[in-house]
Amino acid sequence: MEKPATPDHSILDVIQRRWSPYTFADRAVEPEKTRCLLEAARWSASAFNEQPWRFILATKDNPNAYAKALGCLVEANQGWAQQAPVLILTVTRTTFIRNDNPNRVHQHDLGLAVQNLITQATSMDLFVHQMAGVDLDKVRKEYNLPSGFEPQTAIAIGYGMDPADMPDELREKEQAPRSRSPLADIVFGETWDQPSPIVKET
Amino acid sequence: MEKPATPDHSILDVIQRRWSPYTFADRAVEPEKTRCLLEAARWSASAFNEQPWRFILATKDNPNAYAKALGCLVEANQGWAQQAPVLILTVTRTTFIRNDNPNRVHQHDLGLAVQNLITQATSMDLFVHQMAGVDLDKVRKEYNLPSGFEPQTAIAIGYGMDPADMPDELREKEQAPRSRSPLADIVFGETWDQPSPIVKET
Repeated sequence: MEKPATPDHSILDVIQRRWSPYTFADRAVEPEKTRCLLEAARWSASAFNEQPWRFILATKDNPNAYAKALGCLVEANQGWAQQAPVLILTVTRTTFIRNDNPNRVHQHDLGLAVQNLITQATSMDLFVHQMAGVDLDKVRKEYNLPSGFEPQTAIAIGYGMDPADMPDELREKEQAPRSRSPLADIVFGETWDQPSPIVKET
Repeated sequence: MEKPATPDHSILDVIQRRWSPYTFADRAVEPEKTRCLLEAARWSASAFNEQPWRFILATKDNPNAYAKALGCLVEANQGWAQQAPVLILTVTRTTFIRNDNPNRVHQHDLGLAVQNLITQATSMDLFVHQMAGVDLDKVRKEYNLPSGFEPQTAIAIGYGMDPADMPDELREKEQAPRSRSPLADIVFGETWDQPSPIVKET
């Protein structure tokens, strides 16, 4: 199902086509495609090239590993996410390897990597839905995370479901229109909360 | 100057070509291109679609605004970043609009948006260098950030510089090889720190 952004200024097709479905086709993701997703994340920028991102990867063809990852989502997310053939739990290293000081931007840099994963996925006709609704304590315990690593988000990945196959209540949810604040509300110039002249011209 | 990633698995050209230079050509970025960058960021995913990202945009053709933004970088970054025709200071809203509760993923979601900005930039032959080295207190004071908003990073944007035009010491720095940890070090399966079978196959 297509649900492109409706941008006011031209953006890459692969950014415009991205959206976050609650439904996925009953179809595995090819392992080589999964590696391409992670490879796109791997080459992201990070402060001091610390690469603070870690990915716990679970696929449906390994039921034990999949159940373990799925069980770490909050219940509301387990409902729809269990359709996705690939689940990832993200974790960050919160301190620098070089000097053990806190890395103030570990979550930010994870976001950079995950967006590259998503863009790569979109280019391969895969869909991604991210979740902040994760049982963080459960991730820590189930995977025995060592000190200095913190669980962050979860990511569901799969092929899109044909709207004809969706349950009615989900089809309606999927077809809800997309919306974003205008640029003038998020891009300021010399003064906070005053639109930059560059976006006011639009 | 090209300095592509050397991926082990096929990734999008626009992800492979991205790198973070310390040098920029003496050439303005067209305002419409700048809007396209911000538009790409605008359509990013975020928890509850809260869009916690804010961008303080400064361009060299507005010297006062540019000096104000540049002055908020740590000194080491001011040295090279003052070549860039466009500077952005990023800020996040740290609480949810809907209920004033803390948004645990505000920095992460900023990272998603910034990576879309970078991918859009790369597609338009622009280069981006992000900085964590920002004088956070100075941003807060200079822009009178209201409570609930926190400064995060800075972003330098511009066209690439021809290596022939680079000072010798910077040319050397720019040509340093790129490196990343192997997938097996960052992608785990059922057990923490044990490579996922999917990346072990590689």
